Amino acid sequence: MARIVMKFGGTSVANLERIRHVASLVEEEAKGGNEVAVVVSAMSGETNRLVALVDELDADAGPDGKKWGDAIEDEYDSIVASGEQVTSGLLAIALRRRGLRARSWLGWQIPLRTDMAHSMARIAEIESSAIGPSLADGNIAVVAGFQGVNEQRRISTLGRGGSDTSAVALAVALKADRCDIYTDVDGIYTTDPRIAKDARRLNQIAFEEMLELASLGAKVLQTRSVELAMNYNLPIRVLTSMAADGEENPGTLVCHEDETMEERVVSGVAYSRDEAQITLLRLKDQPGMVAKVCKAMAEANVIVDMIVQGISKSDRAANLTYTVGKRDLEKALAALEKSKEDIGFEGVKSDSDVTKVSVVGIGMRSHTGVAQTMFEALAKRNINVKVIATSEIKISVLIDAEYTELAVRALHSAFELDQAAKLKVSAP
Amino acid sequence: MARIVMKFGGTSVANLERIRHVASLVEEEAKGGNEVAVVVSAMSGETNRLVALVDELDADAGPDGKKWGDAIEDEYDSIVASGEQVTSGLLAIALRRRGLRARSWLGWQIPLRTDMAHSMARIAEIESSAIGPSLADGNIAVVAGFQGVNEQRRISTLGRGGSDTSAVALAVALKADRCDIYTDVDGIYTTDPRIAKDARRLNQIAFEEMLELASLGAKVLQTRSVELAMNYNLPIRVLTSMAADGEENPGTLVCHEDETMEERVVSGVAYSRDEAQITLLRLKDQPGMVAKVCKAMAEANVIVDMIVQGISKSDRAANLTYTVGKRDLEKALAALEKSKEDIGFEGVKSDSDVTKVSVVGIGMRSHTGVAQTMFEALAKRNINVKVIATSEIKISVLIDAEYTELAVRALHSAFELDQAAKLKVSAP
Repeated sequence: MARIVMKFGGTSVANLERIRHVASLVEEEAKGGNEVAVVVSAMSGETNRLVALVDELDADAGPDGKKWGDAIEDEYDSIVASGEQVTSGLLAIALRRRGLRARSWLGWQIPLRTDMAHSMARIAEIESSAIGPSLADGNIAVVAGFQGVNEQRRISTLGRGGSDTSAVALAVALKADRCDIYTDVDGIYTTDPRIAKDARRLNQIAFEEMLELASLGAKVLQTRSVELAMNYNLPIRVLTSMAADGEENPGTLVCHEDETMEERVVSGVAYSRDEAQITLLRLKDQPGMVAKVCKAMAEANVIVDMIVQGISKSDRAANLTYTVGKRDLEKALAALEKSKEDIGFEGVKSDSDVTKVSVVGIGMRSHTGVAQTMFEALAKRNINVKVIATSEIKISVLIDAEYTELAVRALHSAFELDQAAKLKVSAP
Repeated sequence: MARIVMKFGGTSVANLERIRHVASLVEEEAKGGNEVAVVVSAMSGETNRLVALVDELDADAGPDGKKWGDAIEDEYDSIVASGEQVTSGLLAIALRRRGLRARSWLGWQIPLRTDMAHSMARIAEIESSAIGPSLADGNIAVVAGFQGVNEQRRISTLGRGGSDTSAVALAVALKADRCDIYTDVDGIYTTDPRIAKDARRLNQIAFEEMLELASLGAKVLQTRSVELAMNYNLPIRVLTSMAADGEENPGTLVCHEDETMEERVVSGVAYSRDEAQITLLRLKDQPGMVAKVCKAMAEANVIVDMIVQGISKSDRAANLTYTVGKRDLEKALAALEKSKEDIGFEGVKSDSDVTKVSVVGIGMRSHTGVAQTMFEALAKRNINVKVIATSEIKISVLIDAEYTELAVRALHSAFELDQAAKLKVSAP
């Protein structure tokens, strides 16, 4: 007998038909003799509907045309959390109608305690003293994902994708053997199958790799849920909730590197179109110049990602190129304009028509030659690399957006990701 | 400075435009220097949408075609209560955008404690130790109506119309000076204005009268809310939330008789089409016979309302006629069939094409002649009275449904309810 947490996203509970199907998947695990907790998102579309109501009211201006009054994140959380409240109740009913014992648990009922950061709260503690015995007693727990309660007894939400984190944190608190994340894809792929037709589902992937992929734009798992699972060594299985009855559905197991793992140097190719590039022209090349730019960005709440400095030898003036999130570009440019004198540069160029493409693999730690293979593959297709950033297990490049698909396919094929066999990379 | 509870029903918060208007009404009271708590229902239609989801799942059958598993009222409550959760948050946001301090309160946050009767819970206690100081501190409290929390920390709901009761109970707990119930009509009328064009809005009405009217089919206020207000002598004002800016909106004050009250014998004419009549033919006229009928009905969970016995002199056999709720008619007839031998009757007739029409007035306690005026008015229109029932302050008659409008108009005019002046009834 095992204790399992199953998590179903919005498309998996989009309507009553799908909720009934989820109930059948839960029943299978329960009938297998397992203790089961289920975490559900809101019916797909419901969160957007509620957010649209909030946004419209929030935009109201006072009689002087200005936006009056206090922040509203606390009320946003209370409103939006109602979506998961509805699905958790509906799934509990569907399970009862299959003859199973089940009940819903809202964030404040568990309680799942969070910090005070409304609409992007972090989990502080999950109380298992009520839900644990209920599970042990043979009840299926249907938990409303994405929500918790803070120390002021207000509802808090974990931010978009927070249901993954709810599920993993609950699994940790309940000392579960595994957390199964059901979604609309059947696992983690070597790259986006819409771009590379020969993309392959991975049987296993290491936490660290998944982290890089998650933060690099592969939208299957939320980054924080993977961090949490890694810290507590909790295996996550990603699989589809759309499989037909009896169909095999092994999914992808996300776990520690030292468990049976395919030998690969590169596990996947990720890309993100959410980037924008900023270049400061002819900065004075003096100590602290980059720090000043970073300070200006931080004060404007803009996160700087890749950064590269090119020095012109002739006059000791430098160009500085860096990337920010596309939606932060205007904010960043306004902040630069304000700090122009202080930082000391002559001009700004920006480009939001760029893509970040990355190769990720835990094997890069012990294998050389990955960079060479990558840049050769890009050069062969005449793809110009604008910025490079690396970490221990990934290499990212910024390229013109129009080359995205070409680059992803070229790298996917260069690292033989379409093949299940061990990849050999020649030393440089 | 007063402390006021304002309550808005589903049509008053049906969309964002109406919620903004509600915010303007709340602002007016707050700017008048009052402490204000607001109780809101779900956006109209939302509760029905949620109930339909629950009902569809609840109807699912197991593999043997039977309905499996536990009752679902606890999950019903958790799901349906989300509707008020959304409106309370939205109104709090609308108030903040007008520069006011406001926050939402869910049933479990107050807490508003109830008994364990899911989907028709009764309020056990309202804690005022958190919400009271918040009000005194100048915050507007926006309370989700209709919901509470029970001792198992599950969400409970008070049943349809429960938001009125939430509002009155909250006003009692907060020692409010008044509870204003905003609705889609501008007060309590002498009768249904759709039937009698000259129906008049009452400026005041006594609790007892309102109770009779509420339970007799006038759907403006929920019966339990009026009982509660009467027990704690809390004045309720019923008024419209649809008045244009600057339009006078005095509504109707529901309060104790001894306060300034118009002198009237009859205050209103109510009717209910939800009745059905059952006649048992040729019962043995022996002691305990009516008790046996009532017992059979009670065992079938059918409430008996009016009851009349007619004795045939010739053979000491009697007919017994009584009324039940129209939706209980089949259940009642089945129960009679089962107890036919035990009760001892020869046949059953039933008729669901009947209406109960009632005149209500606290002045009937001290004035005679009301019955005479009533029956003369009905007789003059050749309206046959099938059953009569009376209490200290009301007389009800059962008539053929097709005479409903005629009877209501006849009584409304016989008691001069179209006129504001004091009504004189001649002694018999």
